[in-house]
Amino acid sequence: MPRFLVLHGPNLNLLGKREPDIYGTRTLAEIEKDLAEWAQGRGIELEFRQSNHEGELIDALQAASERCEGAVVNPGGYSHSSVALRDCIAALTLPVVEVHLSNLHARESWRHQSLTGGAARGVIGGLGEQGYRLAILYLAGES
Amino acid sequence: MPRFLVLHGPNLNLLGKREPDIYGTRTLAEIEKDLAEWAQGRGIELEFRQSNHEGELIDALQAASERCEGAVVNPGGYSHSSVALRDCIAALTLPVVEVHLSNLHARESWRHQSLTGGAARGVIGGLGEQGYRLAILYLAGES
Amino acid sequence: MPRFLVLHGPNLNLLGKREPDIYGTRTLAEIEKDLAEWAQGRGIELEFRQSNHEGELIDALQAASERCEGAVVNPGGYSHSSVALRDCIAALTLPVVEVHLSNLHARESWRHQSLTGGAARGVIGGLGEQGYRLAILYLAGES
Amino acid sequence: MPRFLVLHGPNLNLLGKREPDIYGTRTLAEIEKDLAEWAQGRGIELEFRQSNHEGELIDALQAASERCEGAVVNPGGYSHSSVALRDCIAALTLPVVEVHLSNLHARESWRHQSLTGGAARGVIGGLGEQGYRLAILYLAGES
Amino acid sequence: MPRFLVLHGPNLNLLGKREPDIYGTRTLAEIEKDLAEWAQGRGIELEFRQSNHEGELIDALQAASERCEGAVVNPGGYSHSSVALRDCIAALTLPVVEVHLSNLHARESWRHQSLTGGAARGVIGGLGEQGYRLAILYLAGES
Amino acid sequence: MPRFLVLHGPNLNLLGKREPDIYGTRTLAEIEKDLAEWAQGRGIELEFRQSNHEGELIDALQAASERCEGAVVNPGGYSHSSVALRDCIAALTLPVVEVHLSNLHARESWRHQSLTGGAARGVIGGLGEQGYRLAILYLAGES
Amino acid sequence: MPRFLVLHGPNLNLLGKREPDIYGTRTLAEIEKDLAEWAQGRGIELEFRQSNHEGELIDALQAASERCEGAVVNPGGYSHSSVALRDCIAALTLPVVEVHLSNLHARESWRHQSLTGGAARGVIGGLGEQGYRLAILYLAGES
Amino acid sequence: MPRFLVLHGPNLNLLGKREPDIYGTRTLAEIEKDLAEWAQGRGIELEFRQSNHEGELIDALQAASERCEGAVVNPGGYSHSSVALRDCIAALTLPVVEVHLSNLHARESWRHQSLTGGAARGVIGGLGEQGYRLAILYLAGES
Amino acid sequence: MPRFLVLHGPNLNLLGKREPDIYGTRTLAEIEKDLAEWAQGRGIELEFRQSNHEGELIDALQAASERCEGAVVNPGGYSHSSVALRDCIAALTLPVVEVHLSNLHARESWRHQSLTGGAARGVIGGLGEQGYRLAILYLAGES
Amino acid sequence: MPRFLVLHGPNLNLLGKREPDIYGTRTLAEIEKDLAEWAQGRGIELEFRQSNHEGELIDALQAASERCEGAVVNPGGYSHSSVALRDCIAALTLPVVEVHLSNLHARESWRHQSLTGGAARGVIGGLGEQGYRLAILYLAGES
Amino acid sequence: MPRFLVLHGPNLNLLGKREPDIYGTRTLAEIEKDLAEWAQGRGIELEFRQSNHEGELIDALQAASERCEGAVVNPGGYSHSSVALRDCIAALTLPVVEVHLSNLHARESWRHQSLTGGAARGVIGGLGEQGYRLAILYLAGES
Amino acid sequence: MPRFLVLHGPNLNLLGKREPDIYGTRTLAEIEKDLAEWAQGRGIELEFRQSNHEGELIDALQAASERCEGAVVNPGGYSHSSVALRDCIAALTLPVVEVHLSNLHARESWRHQSLTGGAARGVIGGLGEQGYRLAILYLAGES
Repeated sequence: MPRFLVLHGPNLNLLGKREPDIYGTRTLAEIEKDLAEWAQGRGIELEFRQSNHEGELIDALQAASERCEGAVVNPGGYSHSSVALRDCIAALTLPVVEVHLSNLHARESWRHQSLTGGAARGVIGGLGEQGYRLAILYLAGES
Repeated sequence: MPRFLVLHGPNLNLLGKREPDIYGTRTLAEIEKDLAEWAQGRGIELEFRQSNHEGELIDALQAASERCEGAVVNPGGYSHSSVALRDCIAALTLPVVEVHLSNLHARESWRHQSLTGGAARGVIGGLGEQGYRLAILYLAGES
Repeated sequence: MPRFLVLHGPNLNLLGKREPDIYGTRTLAEIEKDLAEWAQGRGIELEFRQSNHEGELIDALQAASERCEGAVVNPGGYSHSSVALRDCIAALTLPVVEVHLSNLHARESWRHQSLTGGAARGVIGGLGEQGYRLAILYLAGES
Repeated sequence: MPRFLVLHGPNLNLLGKREPDIYGTRTLAEIEKDLAEWAQGRGIELEFRQSNHEGELIDALQAASERCEGAVVNPGGYSHSSVALRDCIAALTLPVVEVHLSNLHARESWRHQSLTGGAARGVIGGLGEQGYRLAILYLAGES
Repeated sequence: MPRFLVLHGPNLNLLGKREPDIYGTRTLAEIEKDLAEWAQGRGIELEFRQSNHEGELIDALQAASERCEGAVVNPGGYSHSSVALRDCIAALTLPVVEVHLSNLHARESWRHQSLTGGAARGVIGGLGEQGYRLAILYLAGES
Repeated sequence: MPRFLVLHGPNLNLLGKREPDIYGTRTLAEIEKDLAEWAQGRGIELEFRQSNHEGELIDALQAASERCEGAVVNPGGYSHSSVALRDCIAALTLPVVEVHLSNLHARESWRHQSLTGGAARGVIGGLGEQGYRLAILYLAGES
Repeated sequence: MPRFLVLHGPNLNLLGKREPDIYGTRTLAEIEKDLAEWAQGRGIELEFRQSNHEGELIDALQAASERCEGAVVNPGGYSHSSVALRDCIAALTLPVVEVHLSNLHARESWRHQSLTGGAARGVIGGLGEQGYRLAILYLAGES
Repeated sequence: MPRFLVLHGPNLNLLGKREPDIYGTRTLAEIEKDLAEWAQGRGIELEFRQSNHEGELIDALQAASERCEGAVVNPGGYSHSSVALRDCIAALTLPVVEVHLSNLHARESWRHQSLTGGAARGVIGGLGEQGYRLAILYLAGES
Repeated sequence: MPRFLVLHGPNLNLLGKREPDIYGTRTLAEIEKDLAEWAQGRGIELEFRQSNHEGELIDALQAASERCEGAVVNPGGYSHSSVALRDCIAALTLPVVEVHLSNLHARESWRHQSLTGGAARGVIGGLGEQGYRLAILYLAGES
Repeated sequence: MPRFLVLHGPNLNLLGKREPDIYGTRTLAEIEKDLAEWAQGRGIELEFRQSNHEGELIDALQAASERCEGAVVNPGGYSHSSVALRDCIAALTLPVVEVHLSNLHARESWRHQSLTGGAARGVIGGLGEQGYRLAILYLAGES
Repeated sequence: MPRFLVLHGPNLNLLGKREPDIYGTRTLAEIEKDLAEWAQGRGIELEFRQSNHEGELIDALQAASERCEGAVVNPGGYSHSSVALRDCIAALTLPVVEVHLSNLHARESWRHQSLTGGAARGVIGGLGEQGYRLAILYLAGES
Repeated sequence: MPRFLVLHGPNLNLLGKREPDIYGTRTLAEIEKDLAEWAQGRGIELEFRQSNHEGELIDALQAASERCEGAVVNPGGYSHSSVALRDCIAALTLPVVEVHLSNLHARESWRHQSLTGGAARGVIGGLGEQGYRLAILYLAGES
């Protein structure tokens, strides 16, 4: 049974409360619950982790590389500032897909580029919650 | 039965021949054939179009907005230079998902940003052929 | 009887449908019809052409230089990316006035400069449909 | 009887003497005289004002907003440096059309953008003296 | 008998009429005629194609890669804006030499770099009509 | 009894009329009246001055340095363009606090930096009318 | 009794020891003690927190939004690099005033802009320790 | 007897008080008095003018062009921001030499270039008060 | 007996596994063990610390300044993004030498500059594991 | 019998030893020998000069302008940094063709532009050793 | 008797031949002869040196610092590229005045700044041959 | 007995005289004498060379590659401007370590990057004279 880490970066614990016109009205708990059930139904096990700490995200990703087959990462604001997280993704052989709820290319210009995304397998952005499912399907080799 | 346009931009007709380390070894015909069958199996009809002409891509997208429920667009090199194609995507209410075979954020810096992607619903990059399937699943509201 | 080409670039065939808060609610056909009548009343004949193709716009402008006294060009998105169209305007002796419906200086910063406008006689922007009339009055030496 | 302010910025009092290959050989007095007569013939009253002082241009525009229906402004060099004049145009509800005798897009690159023009209704450039007439026709809702 | 495509981009059909101080006074027909005869005398067959359309240039180059041993390309204004044409040259194994009549390094700074030239074997600029002959000699392995 | 100059730059005389969503609905006269009373109650005397002229602001500040203990300056648009006003603040030993009604860091990127603010003691921005009181409290050594 | 968080970022625990010509000679403990007493005297309760960890600052701010009426934040070096902290301030409805001891506009150019400050209500800089008091007065609606 | 205008821009009236390590300890009055006497001794008459107003400097220069043989201009901070003053110098045939007390190339990088100096005959910087004498010798054709 | 901290930043715990062509095949444990023995032989005691957390690195450095004579820091990815760590090094009087295994000047251009290195005594890069020994020799005043 | 200088800049004496994948495996002596013979066969005499010194290249070019009909210059690394060599080429009436063995447009971005090439008649790059022959043919008016 | 070095950089030995519209028609020998006589008449001895070699200019300046009271340097193209020459001027206590025949601020933008001039006492530009005399008068403390 | 070249670039012959707060008070001769003795004691022979000439530095390095096992290079100002010296280091297989007395990252921003350092094995900066010893230890494989 494949196992993937779903890793959320800073402020994603505020989902549902934070700027709902950009990020939607559902809480992170609701999103994770639905995602877990959906995955379960496909024989996939998910681990969830959220942290506002850059270092914890790096720790979590390093740890996941020992016991997971892949990771879905939404690095939030660290996408644009964290060389350290980028180096971490590049250093591991763990397949990583980066997901953003909003479309980075349609927001402030300094959000267009994802430093971390350049080290991932690929990036899915702008497709909301569904982006996570698509990333998992990719990692599971399905679809 | 939902119907989507799958639109390929310049040089994608060379797939399989062109820089296989970046773009893979399968031809566009093979990719489209598999994609059509896979979609058929899910009750989705696909239309395919490839053109090297910026204007023809705009024409095709405008025409599709009359008879399709969505479009998957891989604008190739026009992603980075075509204000006209961006304006077209922005002008239509047709849902558009942009797909790139390679991970733009991992290539030359002038490929990091997608001008056209900023006008699309979202962008999927770096996930190879599977990116098209994920985009279709999104447009079909599945997954 | 003086004769001018009125040339519209990409996506202007979507006028009336496209972002009406920026571009107004009238269709290109309506605009052209009114413009033709208004010109007729002043003894001026107008030819209209719209294309989404950069090359067709160049062809059209080259052809017009043989049988018209001037041209009003709204290059749409090509204003900001087309060195080829700029070179065409610069190469011809045909007087060209560039017109934009919206005020480029008030939009995204990459729309502030018009590459093509630098090769034209002058540029009129932000004055909506009336901009075309003013451009024609200029070319006709009236007002 | 509609009344418009025609406001000239720095060095435009030198017209006729200053770089005639760029700005023509007619003096500001001649231009204003012809413009006034032409307007009179159309039932439009014009007020003229020229100043080399940034602050006086702002004062004049603020004052005009009390007793005029619109303004034609040629801010000269202040187009490219005056945030204060831009803020003034943006703050007033008075319709303003910016006019430049020369084509900014065809000159030094730092003249391409008009800071003040971004706050105006529109910008007419490169059409010489006729630009003023076109701007007035626009404000008067004629043509 | 070796066969090469000589491909001209936008506005080069205006040669002889367009800015003769930069591009000379001879027409494209004259240039091509002389070039064909000169090549004939060396046992080389030339095909000529000119288009103002970015897509047609790509089509032509793709087609040539099937039946020619090389191509001489003068992409005109597309040199500086066409990622699509660059990708095309990079994708084909056909040897391409880029030729410019004028010296790009001596003109406007945005003409200094050739996006397309970076994908070609080499670039010859500033040597006028003779540049074509030198490019052909290179492709033919002569000189 | 300490005495401070409260100096307002261009367009601040339009307060209450100008873009009320950014600058509020109270007029400059109302703001100054309240401020004077509030100061009076704390044994502080205020002088007010508003000008749209860069030079007058410099003159006023130079003059104030002879008879005031400090100055609160809202340079409006000159914050971003006036090297001369910056040099003036730097040249005087008069303590100056710069105040902006709106939060510069939250507006257009070219408003982020304050050229004049770099020569002041400090900058208070985004706190509306209250910013003036805070600046006065600072200069008075209170709070 | 209103309650505010006073949050200090990295290295502010070194106050008094660190570059005293820029940051003064008083320790953070002394500053906080005086601030608490001063606030107490005005019926305001303050909570203090200092951390060198970006994530802890985000956690603290999120937590404060549950039990405080506002926050005064001095993000130290994170002002210029932390998209995550900026997103946090923007996501919460808690009123935040950013305070800097030194005048950012007068230091290295890469300290001029505050990324986090753009998401706060306002920014007070360069007024030393007094800046905290002014920020509290603002949040308390006093002065 | 040749007559030259010596024109000082903003804040130069503060000479002697302002940042003496950069600008010296002598007042403008002392400098002008010595300069006048020195010139007198060489049969040269000098007119002096100082203003903090950009517009007055332009007015003064335009006026001088009627009755002087040349002008020595120290535009102070306007050197780096005033397109209007630059246009004025370029528009007049009056020979202008720009003088700066300090060496612009040795100060903040945004002081390196002189916008106004580019329109003058030449620029003398860094040579203190003596710079004015050298400029006058040049204009007088002496030395 | 002198005592130095050897501080490793993010992802350096992956040494030996991570991109061995850039960072070598030895693990951090092996490197530290050899380094400790080598130092021991010279009468130097070393403390080791690795963390992926920016804040922990700052904490560790602040703590070391109480009980060590110097520190060797390899900040990994934080070299290029952490203003906070730079401020920390600048704030302490502890001598710090920055070491990088790879040559920053030979990698991606955004790795050329070290923000943190600018606050250290010096920087040694590109000399692999030996860099640590050289840094220690420097701090110990040997060699 | 026409005579041309073939001038090689820094490090070209290392040809054959230096980065053979970029510059080929033949030594400069071999290249020059072949070139001399080939030219001899066409009645052209060549002079060769190589220097690592910027000043010697300038001296050599100045001297050549007295006794040669043209020069072929490969300035190596000085192409991108030497204003002095550029000025030299611009100052002489000697026809100069610049040659590069590699294709500058396909290398690091700071090699795209040739400062010196902008002052030459034209530039040939990327065609290896043959580039020299083509340049000589051009100068000799042959082909 | 004071003694000054007059040092000319690359291509200034071509004076009279090189671009006479920019640099005048007199040769360096003529200029130096006149300059020497003029100085002699004022009891000043001049040494002349010209070199196209950056290193020789540095050598010459270092040597002059032993036996001259000052130097007038026209570094030609090295003004804009030579950090080494700048460092040399900064390292010596010898007073140096930089002179340019043409007005750098009126030429290509990359000639606006003088790297070397920033290390000199001052810079005189645009005043032709007379600039040398003015520089000598300054160094001699005359005028 | 291993032999290394110690190569000093421009102005380093002024050491001891030049800006002693940056570069120390010891002369190059003293530094070289001590270094030679220290090396002798470790069985290492050193060759010294200093030149202000870019070309001589290249010549010296090329020559050293024939008879030395490595080189320590302090390119002075050429670090930031010399593509030619960079190409030389890259072309040779001789191991090169670049040394700077001062910490480049702590000085003017245009000194942060070392163009030449990017082609060396590594760079040691900011550690004063000791930097040379560390570089030699590295080359000798000691420490």
